[in-house]
Amino acid sequence: MEQSGFSIRPSLRGLSFSPTLLINEEVSRARAAGHLIYHMGFGESPFPVHPVIQEKITGYAGRNSYMPAAGLMELRNKAKAYILAKHNVPPDQEYLPMIGPGSKELIFDIQLALDGDLLFPVPSWVSYIPQTLITRDEVVKIYLTPEESYKLSAERLAARITRAREEGYRPTKLILNYPNNPTGLSYTAEELSRIAEVCRRERILVISDEIYAQVSFSESHTSIAAFYPEGTIITTGLSKHLSLGGFRLGVALVPANLEAVFDVLRSIASETFSAVSTPVQYSVLAAFEQNPEIETYITECTRIHHIVTHYVWRALLEMGIEYPRPVGGFYLYPDFEPYRELVRERYGVTDSPTLASRLLSDARVAALPGTAFGDEPQALRLRLSTVDFDGMSALRLYQRDGAEDEAAFVESACPRVAEGCRQLKRFFTGEL
Amino acid sequence: MEQSGFSIRPSLRGLSFSPTLLINEEVSRARAAGHLIYHMGFGESPFPVHPVIQEKITGYAGRNSYMPAAGLMELRNKAKAYILAKHNVPPDQEYLPMIGPGSKELIFDIQLALDGDLLFPVPSWVSYIPQTLITRDEVVKIYLTPEESYKLSAERLAARITRAREEGYRPTKLILNYPNNPTGLSYTAEELSRIAEVCRRERILVISDEIYAQVSFSESHTSIAAFYPEGTIITTGLSKHLSLGGFRLGVALVPANLEAVFDVLRSIASETFSAVSTPVQYSVLAAFEQNPEIETYITECTRIHHIVTHYVWRALLEMGIEYPRPVGGFYLYPDFEPYRELVRERYGVTDSPTLASRLLSDARVAALPGTAFGDEPQALRLRLSTVDFDGMSALRLYQRDGAEDEAAFVESACPRVAEGCRQLKRFFTGEL
Repeated sequence: MEQSGFSIRPSLRGLSFSPTLLINEEVSRARAAGHLIYHMGFGESPFPVHPVIQEKITGYAGRNSYMPAAGLMELRNKAKAYILAKHNVPPDQEYLPMIGPGSKELIFDIQLALDGDLLFPVPSWVSYIPQTLITRDEVVKIYLTPEESYKLSAERLAARITRAREEGYRPTKLILNYPNNPTGLSYTAEELSRIAEVCRRERILVISDEIYAQVSFSESHTSIAAFYPEGTIITTGLSKHLSLGGFRLGVALVPANLEAVFDVLRSIASETFSAVSTPVQYSVLAAFEQNPEIETYITECTRIHHIVTHYVWRALLEMGIEYPRPVGGFYLYPDFEPYRELVRERYGVTDSPTLASRLLSDARVAALPGTAFGDEPQALRLRLSTVDFDGMSALRLYQRDGAEDEAAFVESACPRVAEGCRQLKRFFTGEL
Repeated sequence: MEQSGFSIRPSLRGLSFSPTLLINEEVSRARAAGHLIYHMGFGESPFPVHPVIQEKITGYAGRNSYMPAAGLMELRNKAKAYILAKHNVPPDQEYLPMIGPGSKELIFDIQLALDGDLLFPVPSWVSYIPQTLITRDEVVKIYLTPEESYKLSAERLAARITRAREEGYRPTKLILNYPNNPTGLSYTAEELSRIAEVCRRERILVISDEIYAQVSFSESHTSIAAFYPEGTIITTGLSKHLSLGGFRLGVALVPANLEAVFDVLRSIASETFSAVSTPVQYSVLAAFEQNPEIETYITECTRIHHIVTHYVWRALLEMGIEYPRPVGGFYLYPDFEPYRELVRERYGVTDSPTLASRLLSDARVAALPGTAFGDEPQALRLRLSTVDFDGMSALRLYQRDGAEDEAAFVESACPRVAEGCRQLKRFFTGEL
């Protein structure tokens, strides 16, 4: 670079490739080379595209015109109604829906649009912090502990805002993701309402990443927008409950009182990605229509995620790793602190990146270190994802036989997850 | 906004909605309300999706996995080979291809990746400057005149770089677009080789926007990369010669010696749009395979653009507006200076935004003012686009009957363009 005279923008020199995408490319290469890998590193829902959506894209393959920058009006309206209903948001607040190429892009654009520093609970999803390198914003971290189930409390939030201001920061926006990646945990309505109170009082906008809302295991999901409608932007997409990650379509609901923010998002869209691919927009209309076939499919896929994630959770408990019961998504974020001495003595491991690296080389289990989620390296935390199985076969088996014996279902439908758990145990008990 | 406590990032407060997209939405509304509009404001190629590509997307509707951030390897390789051949770039330089959701997004990401200030020939395409508001870069404008056919010369470039440095700017990148939007003009190989010399000497990276390369009317298109391979990033896409704007797929070819730039582009992708929609990537493989049917289609569509654009050019000549013969794309950028007195007296018009506005209200001709392309308001320049016709019918008529009598072809296949020209003449001669 030096000799050519062109140089990378200094703020971006620390930008690295997204760790989730990177580990996926690594695992693909290892598998292509014939290695058996238990892939607990990537969070891609493995089920097939629903036939109704496959059919739709076929019907719209001839549509080549640009869509409006905020998206096809019919799609925007349907998505808004569907999401508000599914996320338990009362209809008394008006929202402006924005369609983008993935909720990741929309979260980036929201961060770009809004002035001020970002309040960032740790652990949080891998892309939020690199996005602040691009937007050149300051990050105010709030480190959460296993004892508080990695959940932000109103008290912790209020105290951190006060301290941040004393330190000269200007916190204006909070990212809250629930059900959470990497923890698989979520907030109760009561907890959200107390966080909402703090945000309203302190004038903090909430970027509420609810992409796992429809992969909730038990009671239905409630958005913080139910308690803080005027200051919450909900983002979500189709990649989790409909396994449509590769289609690249996300939605943001901006409260109508923040029309100026919506206008900037629309302008950013019009100057960058223009609009989401036209055939893709038409094809996913059906996803927001409460189509009974699609709703059943979502319920079944979520039930399978529930079963598999609980299987891994029980395997961790059996290893002596205490962890709250996951309530949504397809991840766990265990702390291997009880094994600190063992991994230090046996593997020379004292931090999470080295732990992840040894786990891959010795046990062939791919997992992401806590550092990818903002955690300190010395915390021996890993994110385990629970999606390394053939979704089509699992879905068929579930539809045919059900899954009354959950362990047997996982052993049969998700053998790599089951064996991955055994490999984890062997690694940590030194039986490899 | 004030009362809510959240505020827009100051650098973005000047960001407005893309003028081309805006005028398109305005014209759509006017037409929906029953108004007859001659739409010379938007640059969307009007031909149908080629059947081979329609078929492909149908076959890949079930692909829901994420693609690698830089794109499907097969697509990247095919696109690279195809573009280098079509743009007359010798194969001795190695390039790293990057797939993005439109070349607009890729140009934005390149601007974001590279440090320093942007050299910006005026007039230039509408989105380059708003992108610098998002990246927060300085713009060093180089105002080009009708007398120099709005073409940047090596001398003008060298002089502007020197002066910019004296003024404290740090020019590091130049945007060069040819065939050009808004002018419809392009550079000869000789002109490009002289610009390349200046850029090499002054260590300026060229962002070479060649999206109209395959809508060249006469001799084949040559990229500046042929003369400056180590310092040129070629960007292009499928929206112009294949009328696939709504699909959202663009390509950037980064010289392999700038691998650090490529890595940052890939990282930005992985933290924002992730990758281009999977079914879209598979569907356009055929576009880069020298498929004879598709190549014939491209030739036919380009020939029609040629005929229609020359029709408008001749109409302008008849009005006394001198303009070089367009050589590619589907635009002209006439200067209505000869009518300055008339429009001032008759319409009270003294600048291009008001001129565009009166032209729309009085003659129902939509056009974009020069200000959208960076020009000063007092210059009475408008961009006229020549695509307001039914592409499917025009293509069928051309395939059936040819177009030996070009004027008759336009009158028959593109009646709104023909009548739009007559309306222009009536407006400027005061016959409305």
